[in-house]
Amino acid sequence: MASNGFGQIFRVTTWGESHGPAIGCVIDGVPPRIPLSEADIQHDLDRRKPGQSRHTTQRREPDEVQILSGVFEGQTTGTPLSLVIHNQDQRSKDYGEIKDRYRPGHADYTYDAKYGIRDYRGGGRSSARETAMRVAAGAVAKKILARRLGNAFSVRGALVQIGPHGIDRARWDWAEVQNNPLFCPDPVAAAEWETFLDGVRKAGSSAGAVIETVATGIPAGLGEPVYGKLDTELAAAMMSINAVKGVEIGDGFAAASIPGHEASDEMRMQDGKPVFTSNHAGGILGGISSGQDVVVRFVVKPTSSILTPRASIDRFGQEVEVVTKGRHDPCVGIRAVPVGEAMMACVLLDHLMRHEAQVGPIG
Amino acid sequence: MASNGFGQIFRVTTWGESHGPAIGCVIDGVPPRIPLSEADIQHDLDRRKPGQSRHTTQRREPDEVQILSGVFEGQTTGTPLSLVIHNQDQRSKDYGEIKDRYRPGHADYTYDAKYGIRDYRGGGRSSARETAMRVAAGAVAKKILARRLGNAFSVRGALVQIGPHGIDRARWDWAEVQNNPLFCPDPVAAAEWETFLDGVRKAGSSAGAVIETVATGIPAGLGEPVYGKLDTELAAAMMSINAVKGVEIGDGFAAASIPGHEASDEMRMQDGKPVFTSNHAGGILGGISSGQDVVVRFVVKPTSSILTPRASIDRFGQEVEVVTKGRHDPCVGIRAVPVGEAMMACVLLDHLMRHEAQVGPIG
Amino acid sequence: MASNGFGQIFRVTTWGESHGPAIGCVIDGVPPRIPLSEADIQHDLDRRKPGQSRHTTQRREPDEVQILSGVFEGQTTGTPLSLVIHNQDQRSKDYGEIKDRYRPGHADYTYDAKYGIRDYRGGGRSSARETAMRVAAGAVAKKILARRLGNAFSVRGALVQIGPHGIDRARWDWAEVQNNPLFCPDPVAAAEWETFLDGVRKAGSSAGAVIETVATGIPAGLGEPVYGKLDTELAAAMMSINAVKGVEIGDGFAAASIPGHEASDEMRMQDGKPVFTSNHAGGILGGISSGQDVVVRFVVKPTSSILTPRASIDRFGQEVEVVTKGRHDPCVGIRAVPVGEAMMACVLLDHLMRHEAQVGPIG
Amino acid sequence: MASNGFGQIFRVTTWGESHGPAIGCVIDGVPPRIPLSEADIQHDLDRRKPGQSRHTTQRREPDEVQILSGVFEGQTTGTPLSLVIHNQDQRSKDYGEIKDRYRPGHADYTYDAKYGIRDYRGGGRSSARETAMRVAAGAVAKKILARRLGNAFSVRGALVQIGPHGIDRARWDWAEVQNNPLFCPDPVAAAEWETFLDGVRKAGSSAGAVIETVATGIPAGLGEPVYGKLDTELAAAMMSINAVKGVEIGDGFAAASIPGHEASDEMRMQDGKPVFTSNHAGGILGGISSGQDVVVRFVVKPTSSILTPRASIDRFGQEVEVVTKGRHDPCVGIRAVPVGEAMMACVLLDHLMRHEAQVGPIG
Repeated sequence: MASNGFGQIFRVTTWGESHGPAIGCVIDGVPPRIPLSEADIQHDLDRRKPGQSRHTTQRREPDEVQILSGVFEGQTTGTPLSLVIHNQDQRSKDYGEIKDRYRPGHADYTYDAKYGIRDYRGGGRSSARETAMRVAAGAVAKKILARRLGNAFSVRGALVQIGPHGIDRARWDWAEVQNNPLFCPDPVAAAEWETFLDGVRKAGSSAGAVIETVATGIPAGLGEPVYGKLDTELAAAMMSINAVKGVEIGDGFAAASIPGHEASDEMRMQDGKPVFTSNHAGGILGGISSGQDVVVRFVVKPTSSILTPRASIDRFGQEVEVVTKGRHDPCVGIRAVPVGEAMMACVLLDHLMRHEAQVGPIG
Repeated sequence: MASNGFGQIFRVTTWGESHGPAIGCVIDGVPPRIPLSEADIQHDLDRRKPGQSRHTTQRREPDEVQILSGVFEGQTTGTPLSLVIHNQDQRSKDYGEIKDRYRPGHADYTYDAKYGIRDYRGGGRSSARETAMRVAAGAVAKKILARRLGNAFSVRGALVQIGPHGIDRARWDWAEVQNNPLFCPDPVAAAEWETFLDGVRKAGSSAGAVIETVATGIPAGLGEPVYGKLDTELAAAMMSINAVKGVEIGDGFAAASIPGHEASDEMRMQDGKPVFTSNHAGGILGGISSGQDVVVRFVVKPTSSILTPRASIDRFGQEVEVVTKGRHDPCVGIRAVPVGEAMMACVLLDHLMRHEAQVGPIG
Repeated sequence: MASNGFGQIFRVTTWGESHGPAIGCVIDGVPPRIPLSEADIQHDLDRRKPGQSRHTTQRREPDEVQILSGVFEGQTTGTPLSLVIHNQDQRSKDYGEIKDRYRPGHADYTYDAKYGIRDYRGGGRSSARETAMRVAAGAVAKKILARRLGNAFSVRGALVQIGPHGIDRARWDWAEVQNNPLFCPDPVAAAEWETFLDGVRKAGSSAGAVIETVATGIPAGLGEPVYGKLDTELAAAMMSINAVKGVEIGDGFAAASIPGHEASDEMRMQDGKPVFTSNHAGGILGGISSGQDVVVRFVVKPTSSILTPRASIDRFGQEVEVVTKGRHDPCVGIRAVPVGEAMMACVLLDHLMRHEAQVGPIG
Repeated sequence: MASNGFGQIFRVTTWGESHGPAIGCVIDGVPPRIPLSEADIQHDLDRRKPGQSRHTTQRREPDEVQILSGVFEGQTTGTPLSLVIHNQDQRSKDYGEIKDRYRPGHADYTYDAKYGIRDYRGGGRSSARETAMRVAAGAVAKKILARRLGNAFSVRGALVQIGPHGIDRARWDWAEVQNNPLFCPDPVAAAEWETFLDGVRKAGSSAGAVIETVATGIPAGLGEPVYGKLDTELAAAMMSINAVKGVEIGDGFAAASIPGHEASDEMRMQDGKPVFTSNHAGGILGGISSGQDVVVRFVVKPTSSILTPRASIDRFGQEVEVVTKGRHDPCVGIRAVPVGEAMMACVLLDHLMRHEAQVGPIG
């Protein structure tokens, strides 16, 4: 991936610091004549927006996106889209005391080690605020994908584990994801998780989470072996999200324990079309989509900004103790759900366009 | 990633099919005046080579690499390295009966869906044979890294799980990895695994595996936030290896279950230098190396080529049964150990060079 | 080149339409800890700004650049620079009558042919207004180059021909370039050209021009054979500027007529250092800088927006006559001088960084 | 451009030194199911081959290309093509005496300055022998373009100037280009040039040349503004050829002298289709093809390897005299004709594929 961007045809480049004047992105390679307005993007941004429940940071940002280029009379023109969100709630004073201290689990130390300079306000470039632009780009990608792939297409995400607590997959209900602030597809787990999270917050700690994103209606044939594979790029896309420490496709790590004669998906014909009788592969074989649902999971570590004091050093080499008092999500994994969806949409669109460049119209 | 290559400065492009005349790679961006001979590369290739124990395919390939360009009088010149291995043991007749049939778990169906044509002999381009060129490129990368980073540097890999059987980390011994054909760092587990694998093979089945690769002596500062992160590119590199279904950094998926006040690594000063008291992060914070060991794990699914009959279809839309009679590894994960090391070395070198381009000499 | 950007390490991406809300660029790969403020960039923008003499368009734009990211406490941080200029003088009504008509020599017809949609206001994306962001990026590049290469370094440009009138090279005086509104190094020619241009303007026509840019203090060794050559990238950079129809290095097209025994530059030793006795090569041999001045020339065609009526068609396939009444430069080549300097600076910096990535510190 | 390759979808990477074991290229992004054999490529290679007349080097190379991957049962598979030509006529002894001496006009000095090492045999990587792989890649590109664009499509080149002697364009006859060893479209000039070249050779000197390449049957819409323009990439492609010092599109440098009211191409309707009444623009407006012939010219400097003694230095800093005794073309521009055609074809195909990725099927 490029330092601050990704994609080969549908190319997204993001910029901006948490407490600078603005954050934004440029998207190059957008097909022309796609109807697009700020409202199309805002809808997805609002799903990610902080301050929507007691489980996410109370930092309030209207997060209103502006389109500065690439749209004329309500349609994309094929020239680069420039999207910007001006930062408004920049209480820099909250961060003064960590100016010289390296918060454990954060990028403070490594940014200093790499660049010799660091915008310490709210994490600067390393802040999860950057993910707003991923969601914005994903909204554009989803709109284009929907036009190309039709009604069968969707990209959806859900939280499937929080702390040590997983869901019961038998109760999976996509509609439920919209009904609770935790994007949980299992209503019973959702209720238990809220109680769990309240405890975590009161303890001044935080929790990790596992997110699953699923793309439906994806034609067979997307992905470029043997390096630009669909799963390669999905793994990169998810791992590039803040605090992500692992990515799985289909069975993922469980695949190690499944015997070979049960691990691969058998095929049959149904109504004259090939079908798979299971989806261990997560919809990808040899790096190419098989026509099944594409299934990706990724893990987000617990928020490192916690009230519990932690041992650290400062940039002068002194040992110090760090307590983070700002407004922080006890579980950053929650708001990673729309981010994961957005990344998946961008990768799928890029691969669709790459396929059409080399091979021709899909399907 | 590019379709058939990776890296931005140290750029590797591979080519070749399992049963074509040859496989090879071109490496662009190689620093000049590095002593390099075929023997330097052959050593690593021999570690990956099939037919070395009863646990790997009995296909015999001398796998002798030739350097066709980029080296003059024993030193690299800064121009592209072209490496080639001629294929010799190409028993194509073994594969005739799967010419039109899609082997479950393989890329047969998806290659046909994408390209409308497929070199069915031994999996063609999707064969794990391609990984020989990854190992070759990794050997070059390791040589360069060793010159730049000195004696403290190493990239090593080990098998830490086979089927459902893990190692006892208390018995971890790197020296042991060289002593058994399974690259297992735990001698007790190694012995048990051999028995387990014999059973798997006799049952006509196969087993998955988890590989861990560790880089030591990596300076703080490698990685380009927020997309070209070190972990992003490591995840992509590992996921691009055949049959890999998941990648983790540091704690990986376990991070979901660890409370926030235990999940981040605390820092202290030791002999005037910053040290971490743990390594949950796997040596990467905010996408940038922290100076700790960089720790990556990836899972390889069980070999799909097995003797047990499996239901499938052929390319004419007929339901068929597939039995793979060729010579196959019961656990492809074993030979993935040197491949994982090689990919890690290439990614680290590319990031080292990228850092030096933007920021200057490291350390 | 990327659709809307260029550079491999120092990567510039521009966006924006002539009459949209703003134009801007993102620069990734900027070294950290470079002092940088809006004033540094504004200085160069002002040299390109229209309305400074009667020879350039009277469109008035304050063209005030804002830095939205990548700078903290007056220094670059290594994260992407986002630069923006808000458009203010957008008299769209001037352009209403060419809404459906294809202006000869412009990109109107081809944008419609490609995208099926076109922001017709002021040329939209194809307007030379885009070059303001090139100048902005070049200002950043020059600042970094000056720090790396020292006082001997400069990138300068001059107009060497306007219409059919060239300069007398014997009178070349770099100081003179700042003294006339035509960036002409020959004071005699400058005076004559002003009269010539007045005639062109009164005739409702326009004139082409040839610009020469010269980089001094460039160390030997920049450029990556055999495709990413220094001259390759300079040619691409110049040709990407609006209305440019040709690029030369050193002797350029004149090289065809020079006999071989006079065409190459001989070398001697002077004060213990290699020197060349001439510079036919324009400072580049085999795609790599030789340590001599790097000399590039490019030609800008006459402004296509003229008062003289021209035959054309509209987008409905009707034959029409086009007269452009807006405010236009009779010679767009004049303001191309700072643009050419900027592009040269960006290419040189990118190559310097690429060299340091592969080979190490230069010189 | 990448160091040793070009193209974004149709990506060509070349490798190899003049006197190493082989030269070759890898082409990624090739569409599948294109019939392709060695003979298809060999035909174009033979047009470039040395030793075909007294006007080109007498070095004899069978230059037989082998396809090592990417073709199965006579058709491309969508995986990378690997092409190789083994070097056979490697009289290294000819080059011994220039081992330490920098030949004026060659890349000897700059390669040493950059890399600190140099394969001096026959120019190593900087040898024009590398252009054989450009021709090979171009042959593949032309085959694909012909299938996509139909019979109206062609890419052709001709020599339009040699030394100071141009052609009479009134006598232009494409058929004539095949009838003389100088690729000259003017039979009268062709005869005069042969005499001129004999004189040059006898004088121990050499001559430069100008090549014009023309693509016919190119649909409107190819090219990506504002950096990845069609003319930008054509300029880069041509400038990357050995010894090229300038590139023009359409009127090129002559555009400076043409008054604005004559310089742009007017449009009319003919048989219900848009037509241009002239082609000053060389078929490209705003970086996008207009549907007219695409016309590019480039200049090749005189061969630097000449018998006339030239002053130079050696790598020890001693002043020396250099005479090149090897077998060399008195005018390397002649054999650049098929190279220019090949580069043009590759760029056009890449842009066609890029267009189809972003916008959809052309035309």
